[in-house]
Amino acid sequence: MTEPTKILLDESEMPTQWYNIIPDLPSPPPPPLHPGTHEPIGPDDLAPLFPMALIEQEVTGESHVDIPGEVLDVYRLWRPSPLYRAHRLEKLLDTPARIYYKYEGVSPAGSHKPNTSVPQAYYNNAQGVKKLTTETGAGQWGSALAFATAQYGMECEVWQVRASYDQKPYRKTMMEVWGASVHPSPSDLTEAGRAMLARDPDSPGSLGIAISEAVEAAVGDPDTKYALGSVLNHVLLHQTIIGEEALLQLAKVGETPDLLVGCTGGGSNFGGLSFPFLREKMAGRMNPTIRCVEPAACPSLTKGEYRYDFGDTMGMTPLVKMHTLGHDFIPDPIHAGGLRYHGMSPLVSHIYEEGLVEAESIHQNECFDAAIAFAKTEGIVPAPEPTHAIAAAIREAHRAKESGEETVILTALCGHGHFDLKSYEAYLAGELVDYDYPEEKVRAAMENVPVIA
Amino acid sequence: MTEPTKILLDESEMPTQWYNIIPDLPSPPPPPLHPGTHEPIGPDDLAPLFPMALIEQEVTGESHVDIPGEVLDVYRLWRPSPLYRAHRLEKLLDTPARIYYKYEGVSPAGSHKPNTSVPQAYYNNAQGVKKLTTETGAGQWGSALAFATAQYGMECEVWQVRASYDQKPYRKTMMEVWGASVHPSPSDLTEAGRAMLARDPDSPGSLGIAISEAVEAAVGDPDTKYALGSVLNHVLLHQTIIGEEALLQLAKVGETPDLLVGCTGGGSNFGGLSFPFLREKMAGRMNPTIRCVEPAACPSLTKGEYRYDFGDTMGMTPLVKMHTLGHDFIPDPIHAGGLRYHGMSPLVSHIYEEGLVEAESIHQNECFDAAIAFAKTEGIVPAPEPTHAIAAAIREAHRAKESGEETVILTALCGHGHFDLKSYEAYLAGELVDYDYPEEKVRAAMENVPVIA
Repeated sequence: MTEPTKILLDESEMPTQWYNIIPDLPSPPPPPLHPGTHEPIGPDDLAPLFPMALIEQEVTGESHVDIPGEVLDVYRLWRPSPLYRAHRLEKLLDTPARIYYKYEGVSPAGSHKPNTSVPQAYYNNAQGVKKLTTETGAGQWGSALAFATAQYGMECEVWQVRASYDQKPYRKTMMEVWGASVHPSPSDLTEAGRAMLARDPDSPGSLGIAISEAVEAAVGDPDTKYALGSVLNHVLLHQTIIGEEALLQLAKVGETPDLLVGCTGGGSNFGGLSFPFLREKMAGRMNPTIRCVEPAACPSLTKGEYRYDFGDTMGMTPLVKMHTLGHDFIPDPIHAGGLRYHGMSPLVSHIYEEGLVEAESIHQNECFDAAIAFAKTEGIVPAPEPTHAIAAAIREAHRAKESGEETVILTALCGHGHFDLKSYEAYLAGELVDYDYPEEKVRAAMENVPVIA
Repeated sequence: MTEPTKILLDESEMPTQWYNIIPDLPSPPPPPLHPGTHEPIGPDDLAPLFPMALIEQEVTGESHVDIPGEVLDVYRLWRPSPLYRAHRLEKLLDTPARIYYKYEGVSPAGSHKPNTSVPQAYYNNAQGVKKLTTETGAGQWGSALAFATAQYGMECEVWQVRASYDQKPYRKTMMEVWGASVHPSPSDLTEAGRAMLARDPDSPGSLGIAISEAVEAAVGDPDTKYALGSVLNHVLLHQTIIGEEALLQLAKVGETPDLLVGCTGGGSNFGGLSFPFLREKMAGRMNPTIRCVEPAACPSLTKGEYRYDFGDTMGMTPLVKMHTLGHDFIPDPIHAGGLRYHGMSPLVSHIYEEGLVEAESIHQNECFDAAIAFAKTEGIVPAPEPTHAIAAAIREAHRAKESGEETVILTALCGHGHFDLKSYEAYLAGELVDYDYPEEKVRAAMENVPVIA
């Protein structure tokens, strides 16, 4: 093969600004509302949770935000990340499509999450915050924040969804290696956790519950703030370095994508990859189809309603307008823990409503079929979340074979599956269930979503 | 920081030849002997185990061996691997030393092992072999061979040391994802395994026993051969791509090393990093100290005798002259499973006897102390094996601080610890035992080593 397998950037070529898509959109996304007054919230409402620099990034009107030097220094531990051409997978599929994947599993925590955990820790540290709390589902975000706080000498306390805490003990140890303390959620350390345990002592937990616990632990302590790994504008902002790098890398080999596919849980991996390409598309410089891929068991974009709802289960967060299955919806136990969230980033939701991106949902067995084909050819064992994007890319490669078109596909392989091999074990044993859309459960959950005039 | 964190090579800069150090040595290493006749073995004796291309590489007089194009194609999935400057670790240590580490954990299997598993699978496949058998201790080698055989559509059967099989279920699943079948060793599938189980039904196994089983399974089947992950000349040959790349990378930043440190179990990681630098040293182009680091509990170089012994526990392999603790010595259960081997590569042993390299041994708690400092600064959580080299590098960095010298240290971070977090859990709980050199046990084992006239 004469074409390279990996398209690399030198550290000197690493982008030094994040991209904020909001000013370039036809209309801005609706504002978050105060959970009590239902009025748009201001910076002061968020100040107990986040440092002022992040609150400013949440609402900034600037198209580009400089990445601080001390953040770039930490990024250099793994960035720029490689863009791969999937030569060996293409050969297996016998497709004329050219498949590229941006691999974020090279970060110390093994996913794209450190792209935002590092600046979040940096800005908190700069404001004198001593400790960060957070939740983690699959474990990727908790690991990322533990790594980031270690870089700035901060404390870190993580509530890990009970099911994940029990299934993935090594994720917990990894966080502890970086100095974090880790609790299963629901825990008896918070009112939210105790309330949930009173309702169900054997609760497997959910991201929504864990968020309630981590938020509660942060608001009571002036030296402590809370960090969120997805959903919010500033998180998606930080992740745009993925797409900015991919643009440079594709340009190096003279390619423009026909299709971008990214998995969507909270939306940060998808937004990070796609927003810079969406900018290029809106400016008429390229015209890719851009597609979200979500699990059939938790299809917030393709089946959820677009309306104001809480980000957490207990209703402690601001109300945000998003595609939601209801804030107290607890999805079936699919293995892609990072995609088991009841809502979707308000920004991704807004862009979807504007018709700028499309969405599809896939069952988990098809995703693991795709993952095995990928691992046997490309080597990397993917995390369960990006197997959704790989499955979608393979669907498209089959279509390209039928049509004979040399479709250029770009996807984000947002993490490796080294801590998720229990899910592969279940798949290989034929034990994975393809949960369908749980219509009744969602209908019940939607009844608890507040009605905003 | 203006100096880069990662020194990268483009795929077009990847070396296309492996380096064979033997013709450049003052004297060749003593030949392997037939276990029955005690006469030097010939190619025919090895043919039941290995394909002819590897047997030729085992004894070649050429200084450089071309890497086949189909091997380079697979190497490109992760090679050239990055060379890191440990800026953040240096800062923590407040040392004038400059520490570089060559990171092999970027391979799909997570260690340096695919550097040899890929060519071994390639040459076997080219000769029409359908299946490879092997043993694995920590799991790195079994994973690497499972990955490599998948690339060439071959079968793979792995005997995993019982203690590791029970402690690291995800290593087993990873091998199965790539299509391999995995058995705990000792197993009831081989005579060697059954004999060991008869002696001790609860045997935790050892690399030596697992080798006996994998060899026995290979010799009976004409379509099956055996693959070894360390020790042999051709394995060390394939690993020299590590050192060849590191030479190019250091040259890019104008550095020559004062000290190389590498951990030694069977010797392949150490040989792979150091042999190209030893060539430069013997040619007078640089003058680094080159040091092996081994566990205090299994110190084959610093405490073992240099004499002919078997490579496996049951005495089925040829006799090789090496530093050995006795072929039926079973080391204490330190967590660096890859360093729990009774012997040492004959080539590394010979070079050590020639005085070309030095050796030291370190206890495991000091190694994990070093690993935590490394993980908190550089991010990567190291496998237990290279923590020995990191600990040695940190010792040297402290010495440099005392002397004020700007020592340039190069080490090989041969793998990540994502599957080894149980060992970190034990360390963080204060449960790691620092086993001393087991003098009595070694004396007993040495009594069973054959006496060669």
